[in-house]
Amino acid sequence: MSTNLGVYSEVGQLRKVLVCAPGLAHRRLTPTNSDDLLFDDVMWVENAQRDHGDFVNKLRGRGVEVVELHELLAETVAIPEAKSWLLDRKIVANEVGLGLVTDTRAFLDELKPRELAEFLIGGLATSDLPDDFRSGYVALAREATGAREYLMPPLPNTLYTRDTTCWLYGGVTLNPLYWPARHDETLLMKAIYTFHPDFKGATVWWGDPEQEWGLSTFEGGDVMPVGNGVVLVGMSERTSRQAITQVAASLFAAGAAERVVVAGMPKLRAAMHLDTVFTFADRDIVTLYPTIMDAVHTFSLYPSDREPGVDVVDEGDRKFTEVVAESLNLKALRVIETGGDVYASERQQWDSGNNAVAVAPGVVFTYDRNTTTNTLLRRAGVEVITIVGAELGRGPRRRALHDVPTDPRCRRLLTCPSHTRRWSSFWRCSRSTARWRR
Amino acid sequence: MSTNLGVYSEVGQLRKVLVCAPGLAHRRLTPTNSDDLLFDDVMWVENAQRDHGDFVNKLRGRGVEVVELHELLAETVAIPEAKSWLLDRKIVANEVGLGLVTDTRAFLDELKPRELAEFLIGGLATSDLPDDFRSGYVALAREATGAREYLMPPLPNTLYTRDTTCWLYGGVTLNPLYWPARHDETLLMKAIYTFHPDFKGATVWWGDPEQEWGLSTFEGGDVMPVGNGVVLVGMSERTSRQAITQVAASLFAAGAAERVVVAGMPKLRAAMHLDTVFTFADRDIVTLYPTIMDAVHTFSLYPSDREPGVDVVDEGDRKFTEVVAESLNLKALRVIETGGDVYASERQQWDSGNNAVAVAPGVVFTYDRNTTTNTLLRRAGVEVITIVGAELGRGPRRRALHDVPTDPRCRRLLTCPSHTRRWSSFWRCSRSTARWRR
Amino acid sequence: MSTNLGVYSEVGQLRKVLVCAPGLAHRRLTPTNSDDLLFDDVMWVENAQRDHGDFVNKLRGRGVEVVELHELLAETVAIPEAKSWLLDRKIVANEVGLGLVTDTRAFLDELKPRELAEFLIGGLATSDLPDDFRSGYVALAREATGAREYLMPPLPNTLYTRDTTCWLYGGVTLNPLYWPARHDETLLMKAIYTFHPDFKGATVWWGDPEQEWGLSTFEGGDVMPVGNGVVLVGMSERTSRQAITQVAASLFAAGAAERVVVAGMPKLRAAMHLDTVFTFADRDIVTLYPTIMDAVHTFSLYPSDREPGVDVVDEGDRKFTEVVAESLNLKALRVIETGGDVYASERQQWDSGNNAVAVAPGVVFTYDRNTTTNTLLRRAGVEVITIVGAELGRGPRRRALHDVPTDPRCRRLLTCPSHTRRWSSFWRCSRSTARWRR
Amino acid sequence: MSTNLGVYSEVGQLRKVLVCAPGLAHRRLTPTNSDDLLFDDVMWVENAQRDHGDFVNKLRGRGVEVVELHELLAETVAIPEAKSWLLDRKIVANEVGLGLVTDTRAFLDELKPRELAEFLIGGLATSDLPDDFRSGYVALAREATGAREYLMPPLPNTLYTRDTTCWLYGGVTLNPLYWPARHDETLLMKAIYTFHPDFKGATVWWGDPEQEWGLSTFEGGDVMPVGNGVVLVGMSERTSRQAITQVAASLFAAGAAERVVVAGMPKLRAAMHLDTVFTFADRDIVTLYPTIMDAVHTFSLYPSDREPGVDVVDEGDRKFTEVVAESLNLKALRVIETGGDVYASERQQWDSGNNAVAVAPGVVFTYDRNTTTNTLLRRAGVEVITIVGAELGRGPRRRALHDVPTDPRCRRLLTCPSHTRRWSSFWRCSRSTARWRR
Repeated sequence: MSTNLGVYSEVGQLRKVLVCAPGLAHRRLTPTNSDDLLFDDVMWVENAQRDHGDFVNKLRGRGVEVVELHELLAETVAIPEAKSWLLDRKIVANEVGLGLVTDTRAFLDELKPRELAEFLIGGLATSDLPDDFRSGYVALAREATGAREYLMPPLPNTLYTRDTTCWLYGGVTLNPLYWPARHDETLLMKAIYTFHPDFKGATVWWGDPEQEWGLSTFEGGDVMPVGNGVVLVGMSERTSRQAITQVAASLFAAGAAERVVVAGMPKLRAAMHLDTVFTFADRDIVTLYPTIMDAVHTFSLYPSDREPGVDVVDEGDRKFTEVVAESLNLKALRVIETGGDVYASERQQWDSGNNAVAVAPGVVFTYDRNTTTNTLLRRAGVEVITIVGAELGRGPRRRALHDVPTDPRCRRLLTCPSHTRRWSSFWRCSRSTARWRR
Repeated sequence: MSTNLGVYSEVGQLRKVLVCAPGLAHRRLTPTNSDDLLFDDVMWVENAQRDHGDFVNKLRGRGVEVVELHELLAETVAIPEAKSWLLDRKIVANEVGLGLVTDTRAFLDELKPRELAEFLIGGLATSDLPDDFRSGYVALAREATGAREYLMPPLPNTLYTRDTTCWLYGGVTLNPLYWPARHDETLLMKAIYTFHPDFKGATVWWGDPEQEWGLSTFEGGDVMPVGNGVVLVGMSERTSRQAITQVAASLFAAGAAERVVVAGMPKLRAAMHLDTVFTFADRDIVTLYPTIMDAVHTFSLYPSDREPGVDVVDEGDRKFTEVVAESLNLKALRVIETGGDVYASERQQWDSGNNAVAVAPGVVFTYDRNTTTNTLLRRAGVEVITIVGAELGRGPRRRALHDVPTDPRCRRLLTCPSHTRRWSSFWRCSRSTARWRR
Repeated sequence: MSTNLGVYSEVGQLRKVLVCAPGLAHRRLTPTNSDDLLFDDVMWVENAQRDHGDFVNKLRGRGVEVVELHELLAETVAIPEAKSWLLDRKIVANEVGLGLVTDTRAFLDELKPRELAEFLIGGLATSDLPDDFRSGYVALAREATGAREYLMPPLPNTLYTRDTTCWLYGGVTLNPLYWPARHDETLLMKAIYTFHPDFKGATVWWGDPEQEWGLSTFEGGDVMPVGNGVVLVGMSERTSRQAITQVAASLFAAGAAERVVVAGMPKLRAAMHLDTVFTFADRDIVTLYPTIMDAVHTFSLYPSDREPGVDVVDEGDRKFTEVVAESLNLKALRVIETGGDVYASERQQWDSGNNAVAVAPGVVFTYDRNTTTNTLLRRAGVEVITIVGAELGRGPRRRALHDVPTDPRCRRLLTCPSHTRRWSSFWRCSRSTARWRR
Repeated sequence: MSTNLGVYSEVGQLRKVLVCAPGLAHRRLTPTNSDDLLFDDVMWVENAQRDHGDFVNKLRGRGVEVVELHELLAETVAIPEAKSWLLDRKIVANEVGLGLVTDTRAFLDELKPRELAEFLIGGLATSDLPDDFRSGYVALAREATGAREYLMPPLPNTLYTRDTTCWLYGGVTLNPLYWPARHDETLLMKAIYTFHPDFKGATVWWGDPEQEWGLSTFEGGDVMPVGNGVVLVGMSERTSRQAITQVAASLFAAGAAERVVVAGMPKLRAAMHLDTVFTFADRDIVTLYPTIMDAVHTFSLYPSDREPGVDVVDEGDRKFTEVVAESLNLKALRVIETGGDVYASERQQWDSGNNAVAVAPGVVFTYDRNTTTNTLLRRAGVEVITIVGAELGRGPRRRALHDVPTDPRCRRLLTCPSHTRRWSSFWRCSRSTARWRR
């Protein structure tokens, strides 16, 4: 059985998208713990929720089906074996501590699915345990600090659904994320992909949160299936060559891709995910931050008959945009650089000015605050729909500079009506890629 | 079969000790990478080696058998199945990258045991690969940064052998260390305990570097088997309640200990391992840093008939030293505080002034630079043997403030001649504990 | 001649207030330079201006006369001797560099007053110099880094007008601010107080930006003239005992105050200005952050006949609120603590939840995001007027945690109609203080 | 009257040198305050003193007259008007606090000159005040933090005498140092140059610690009078163009120099003083760190008839070493780069491997730990005398990466015997420069 989901381009009509609303996990953020939880700042959760709601409405207004992570997880843990599977992996002595396993499990087992989903994402503090479920062992927990007072850790970075799993053409990766504080996000997604009726049976190209991956870390913010059998991947602090080559080998072995173009990011603090400095706004239009992108070293990976099935080509001095254009059979990409003078440009990049999400060719969502870059996009004929970034933008930019809280990998097929039923959700194909694709 | 090793006190005659000499791993340290590798500063390796050699000579002069990690590891990988076991676990695609596994393994397989041991501890950079073993895949490695350019990471913290494994009475723990940069240290030790003829068959109470331990981290700098069936453990950022309770349960189940006294360390940056602020100098003499130790919250763990086999007693306002004295059936501990005024005291603690290692009752090794505390110890009748700390002391103090580069857990039995042959190495027992012990 | 301005309480009717709108200085902020300029984050200047405008409108709606710094400065530099005075002090070789003085001065001399005011606050980069005013010396400027590329530095912290000068009853202090990056703010204020017709002739109690003050630093966020001849001062990293005692001696010598109550702030990172953790909402209502305020050590300073004219009384274990109540002849203060659980409380303090500005007894302005604390204030009968903090709150909290962008020291007299004309602006007096005052 | 002192080259026979021995100021360093005092680490003062003594002995063995700062200062404050001058400037209300001036001054007035010199350099904590000199005002001091508990701040960076004043040919600069924590060092030097019989009457080119210098900061570690009328200056975070052009104008106006070659340092954290990455070992031999020096942008300043008396020439793409060679009428410089592989090179630069001090042409002092670079120097025929850097090297490298604790500006004339009496101390001239010089 198969899900018929997929992502076939970065700019085709977005059919379905997975988002995660701000909630309990973000109310847990304080100036003291935000560093550990990879956030720059605390956010005003009520307003972030309001702005997120507006974002979701605008997506729906564009005909996109929006799925929310808390709801998806609630529907998943409503299935008894899914709930057991997840709690068997979360409520163990290594995490909650000897002597607290039974009580914690008993408390969680009593909860309604939606309440359980809240704690799975929002974290369970020892102080959340009702008196009936508290034993003498809790005393020891009081000693421990910060994140360790949690029986289940809060996962505020679920907000960035794009990182955790990647739809690459007809299959998905379950990513080992770089920061340990985010590892459990992928476990939640595995539960969904294993048990939820809308998603189970998805083809998994690579990754499994129940295994150890060492230096093989992979984050969706670095990954773009651009069509024509090509996948762009940023090789960064968080997405390693160890992972990239494995994913490439898997895709090539399945015939799911024909080329992986690797953007070797410079070692700057500000260079995190590829999608914070380079995104597509139309089939041949990209917005990028030249300060970083000019320093990228490009490689191409191709299928090979010899073990391990991947050939590496060093593109040398060729510009990344030139290689990408060639891989897409385009003469050139039209490039819109971050707008404004030296001050404005740095500020706009910081505020995710290059982090557009296309819902259709030439139609993108961006943050309202990047007025200069948004104007440049509009001048280029791109329709720009803005969302409020005052709270949602207060994420882990110092570390990650990354993406709007959505999962643009999850797109339905637009221009291939015969496939609509079969590929009912989670993918898209732009005309050009579709034409090529089949 | 059993090793007959063990540690039965913190001050009994030290019979055998495991140390690690500075070497390649420390020559890899630079101002740029030292943070990632948990070091405060780069060290002058030649002088550190000279000072370490002097330290080893002084230990031998006291009748201690000294075992060195590089040598032990070389002897281990000289055993073919040990070498295979270790390289099967180290040279995998997740660590070295797809396409580099075969060549890297081929290169390492050709090395002599001592050379291989050097790289296992010192790290293997991609640039260490001879031309014959380089393929196109190495190009990608050039892109990655810092520690990631390594095919095997350098392990400079092996210097602190005390942390990685703990002898607790007649058995050992294989510790999950807090920092990911140190995880592979425990794998090396597992290879030794599994294959080396002097050590194989050791009873392992707890821990396995091939498993995931989540929040259950445990470091030997926090652990002191003080005799009388008692183990002191510092509960700190790096040694968690999740691990402490599991170790206690294992010891209790085996009848190996009767009480674990937990020192709940305050959440200060300077409070790392218990042995950086509290160590024994004689059966009833301790040296401690009052600024930290006055803020400790003490718990006692006892065997229990009920699951999970451990009872927790909150010692409330009782001083840690009072609880320790009681647990050892002593009226009181004689306490030697860090010497000097407010400046000197903070400086001496920083320079490991409270981090004494006893080689016999009333005979300790300390760093030369802590002159004030050393004088106070001598006034109390303790024999103080100093070693040069100019280079060896440049370790991860900002993070760890910890121990002289030795493994005091490895002590032979002194006063129980009938057991000498059987417990031929790695333990000691002071008279008092021996009397109780059997 | 005298200005008839003054501040006689923290809660009386606010008559006149000095604010500073976001502008060029804030458009200069980037992720790279924000640390040097003491800002946590870059702000969206357009929206910050919108929110600031709304704040000003709401103040006016409450009958407060609002004066804006750019306008005040433009009116000041429209006076030729004021312009010369200021440029003689700003455009000197030590700041702009030899060889750039004449050209820079020539460029600035040509500007209209409003344009000059923009650059005085917003900073003048070498790249702002038109070609006609550029010489070969500019080449050297290219080499220098960050703030040093400026011929006049940007002063984004002018936003916090409360810090720079303090109205204390009938006179003002020209404060030596803690951070060198803010020193020039006081020079701008001195120009205004020296030349602007509405302000010249003001009695200056203490301070002069043209002198060096060493460790004597003083910031208005720590200073509260509460009436009854009492001034509260937070003794913090930024407001030193060296300055406090000098200000007290000046006030006592002039008969302008009878007691200074010093809140010795704990040495925590989060404890900055007193007004970030303690402000008045009504004559006997304060909102405070207990985590910090419980650790305050209180002193009282009184006039003395002996040199240097100040007596110090250590209030020992007495609570700060108790001492303050006594100094105001109140039985007790009604205390509203930061609202919510342990998470919300820390978050709200961080977001300036305790940083209320009263415009009249029982009527305060606060940020909208501190919903829990705002609710508690309302329950206590306080009228809470909220302003949008999404951008305005992105200030130097990590360093300063401080105040809404207003100058509450500038208050007119409410309940003393006979003085209205004479004390036409910049002060207020609540009934109780008015009674005492005359 | 004139001192007849001077420095005429970087490699001529060193005749006289000013050093500062470690002492009280360094015993004040703790892990808590070392950042504020610009030190990386605490040092073992006794051993640092031993190593410093060895350094002094070796200098004397080379015929250098060594003057020590504590002694020089003691001789200075033994002169009553010098003592009054200094204490009038140090013991003021802005620094010690109102109410503590009289008592503090009374205590210091009673001390012997050597004791006073100790406190002037080592700092005076409130707790150093004997009971007879303590008043109620001290209570307030208890509240203040860190460096603020000092009535006179400790000045541990006096160790780096090279920074504070610069002998440039026949005159000296009294430098405004970058970090406020070092400002008082220059005041001590002004007292010496004003009152000490061996130094008074020195020609001061520029600088005065009693004035404010704004962005005009200047540090001797960036300054090298290389002979032939040329001065090399590093333009760095700590030595600004505002200061460099003023010094150049002074030198040119006095006819003391004919060209200033400016090394525009890159904005890297590791690039501090020029002498940490570039020093002379012989008349035509330099040792340098290529990673930094390759990124230097060079300018030349020449005398000009027009105001302000300085012409700027941008040297464009020319290498710094090429410009320096040309300015010295040399065909080329022989360059010895930091030794070893990529690890060793970075480590050696960190450990001041390029920071040689020449005592005569081809004879340099360096730290022992930089064995690779030292070997390269020796192979080039340079005589290398090593000193122990274990403690002395623990200075402010993370911020400054700078120099051995000596003042190489203080050199006597070697090869010009006719001038010996007249230029009796503090200078040197190599043959070539001497020939040119007159």
